[in-house]
Amino acid sequence: MAMSAPTSSPHSLLLQNVNRHHLPTTKTISLHPSPRPTKPISITCSASAQIHDRPAAAAQDRVFNFAAGPAILPESVLRKAESELYNWRGSGMSVMEMSHRGKEFLSIIQKAESDLRSLLSIPSDYAVLFLQGGATTQFAAIPLNLCVQPDPVDFIVTGSWGDKAFKEAAKYCKPTLIWSGKSEKYTKIPSFDDLEQNPHAKYLHICANETIHGVEFKNYPTPKNGLLVADMSSNFCSKPVDVSKFGLIYAGAQKNVGPSGVTIVIIRKDLIGKAQEITPVMLDYKIHADNNSLYNTPPCYGIYMCGLVFEDLLAQGGLAEVEKKNVKKAKILYDAIDESKGFYRCPVEKSVRSLMNVPFTLEKAELEAEFVKEAAKEKMVQLKGHRSVGGMRASIYNAMPLAGVEKLVAFMKDFQARHA
Amino acid sequence: MAMSAPTSSPHSLLLQNVNRHHLPTTKTISLHPSPRPTKPISITCSASAQIHDRPAAAAQDRVFNFAAGPAILPESVLRKAESELYNWRGSGMSVMEMSHRGKEFLSIIQKAESDLRSLLSIPSDYAVLFLQGGATTQFAAIPLNLCVQPDPVDFIVTGSWGDKAFKEAAKYCKPTLIWSGKSEKYTKIPSFDDLEQNPHAKYLHICANETIHGVEFKNYPTPKNGLLVADMSSNFCSKPVDVSKFGLIYAGAQKNVGPSGVTIVIIRKDLIGKAQEITPVMLDYKIHADNNSLYNTPPCYGIYMCGLVFEDLLAQGGLAEVEKKNVKKAKILYDAIDESKGFYRCPVEKSVRSLMNVPFTLEKAELEAEFVKEAAKEKMVQLKGHRSVGGMRASIYNAMPLAGVEKLVAFMKDFQARHA
Repeated sequence: MAMSAPTSSPHSLLLQNVNRHHLPTTKTISLHPSPRPTKPISITCSASAQIHDRPAAAAQDRVFNFAAGPAILPESVLRKAESELYNWRGSGMSVMEMSHRGKEFLSIIQKAESDLRSLLSIPSDYAVLFLQGGATTQFAAIPLNLCVQPDPVDFIVTGSWGDKAFKEAAKYCKPTLIWSGKSEKYTKIPSFDDLEQNPHAKYLHICANETIHGVEFKNYPTPKNGLLVADMSSNFCSKPVDVSKFGLIYAGAQKNVGPSGVTIVIIRKDLIGKAQEITPVMLDYKIHADNNSLYNTPPCYGIYMCGLVFEDLLAQGGLAEVEKKNVKKAKILYDAIDESKGFYRCPVEKSVRSLMNVPFTLEKAELEAEFVKEAAKEKMVQLKGHRSVGGMRASIYNAMPLAGVEKLVAFMKDFQARHA
Repeated sequence: MAMSAPTSSPHSLLLQNVNRHHLPTTKTISLHPSPRPTKPISITCSASAQIHDRPAAAAQDRVFNFAAGPAILPESVLRKAESELYNWRGSGMSVMEMSHRGKEFLSIIQKAESDLRSLLSIPSDYAVLFLQGGATTQFAAIPLNLCVQPDPVDFIVTGSWGDKAFKEAAKYCKPTLIWSGKSEKYTKIPSFDDLEQNPHAKYLHICANETIHGVEFKNYPTPKNGLLVADMSSNFCSKPVDVSKFGLIYAGAQKNVGPSGVTIVIIRKDLIGKAQEITPVMLDYKIHADNNSLYNTPPCYGIYMCGLVFEDLLAQGGLAEVEKKNVKKAKILYDAIDESKGFYRCPVEKSVRSLMNVPFTLEKAELEAEFVKEAAKEKMVQLKGHRSVGGMRASIYNAMPLAGVEKLVAFMKDFQARHA
């Protein structure tokens, strides 16, 4: 996918972001001394007891959080969650207190699934499962459900997460590494024509976006037997995806669509029901599909939060619109790096740079700690690169406003001017 | 444990409960029209912009939720979570947005563990793990970690959950059902002297409190090889427990200590590190113990909520005090059943009745639906028994106020007067 020209001006997008502060929201007011010091909040009351929201103050309170996950969530979603936390829509209870089999929670999980199906145009012959345990649990669950020992499976490994999936799979099938980017420090994606796929491989596994290395598939290889499996944890719902090309898509929620503790699996229904005998019941897709993700108690509050994010993404116009914003944000950040005359460097091959995770280094590596420290003072946090690769990393998921990226770029230019 | 006389009068406990409404808390005020209709809230503002809490109104908004789990949470905990949701203690972000490796979340999980260790006096040679997947995942993880095939294991099954654990274990060890209460509809616990334990059993498994059947161990059998394993999901932190008697204790959080999506495992450290080769990495206790529950992204927000509950339980004086309240609540409810001259019936043997889950039936079974319906109108919800057993069930976990049980008992007496 090319970094295409944005459809709206930076200015209009910035306004759009600022305007989001005026969405329906609530203001929490501390009434009693808290165990920890809190700032006093002054309140203006009109005769009708309306309280004016103060978007400027709210924005000042917030940092720009560039963490790789758990990560920034949309401000309007947090405000909605805050307003509903104590008493969800007149139910007299918090979502955290609801029986997972009660009509209130059923309405929440059903709407979440329905909205996700709309967002990704998920075909009806695919099941959507809300699970626990993160993508790491799926590293085992997938071969346990799709393979019989010693079925061969092909892996393309473009970063640390794909490598972890490959290693875990070896317990339950016979995985082959048909391509690895390790020798080039995970900065590339192979030409699909050159891949030597095993014609008997049960599936071909990829990690669609490597969170640590910032490498993203822009299109997908065609597996010999038709079954493509993708870890989309860190670019899930960041752009439209043709689900029908995949046998199975999985994603931890804590990057683009919710808090940690929810894992989403989208699986073609005919692949369900063939788990190995040693499969723990909680890793058996059939159990969850047959019970609409309610075999045991699901992570209810996390699913509720995902549902609020899905609503927000639909309200933005769906994933095509979301992708435009992500392309725009990524472009100004990569441009700033590439136009820095080597002061900043991104090691990833341009054609496969991630829209979500932007790793970069400083030519003068000794300045990196200072960069992270100064940025934090300016309320831009979590910019340190993953401990395994060093440098910096800016994760700019869906919920990162354009203003956050613009502020980062301005800071980078200023930092360069002071240290070049 | 006998239903001993309460240490304080009903009146003083009621006051204690009402006083909780005056604990440090916050009030959320809707500022804009919400997408769904919400009740207008009138606010009284003083010159200094202080807003008076209105415990009566807050209590009116809330229902008494007798759900078996997810279940009622302490009102003060929900208010605290509400006040911190958008911006946790000046960090500029929600707990849901925090990197699990950042200093903010590390302080949260470390304090949660420390407070839990205080509550249960957990010895230092035990690890505390915050995991995902519910007790059902542990049904597999425990034999995978503690057994080599075909190690024998003994099970005492006193209800549906123990039975599920027994069946799942058969995949990974050789479990023997040394006692089952099934033929007596799970209303009893055996005499420990009569048990025929396998001297080679790797461990003895019990479910300390059966949520569906309302059967609770009041003391514990001594396993032949010294290793007792207990599912404490539905009575965890409801009373003091001598952890040193157990090799492993596990509990889903969503009954007494938090929202769903967090599972707590307390395991003697010398038992860690012997997982079978087929164990999924996420079910290997060693991985989680070595990484302080941060091998992958944990369910951060759920752990935060558990931490708030632990703080609340400590503030109440610890589990000995909590137990006194639970004994008192259970006593007035069981007394109401036993004194109803058969109008209400609890099938469980008196000496092992649960303090947490109180199942009961109506002599006139045809009135049960009416009972549940009328109670709901009176804002007492989720009183229908589990679908597998029918009748009614009142779950009265730690967070259920005495006032809730008193209201239920008053309703039961009134219902009886009208239908006897």
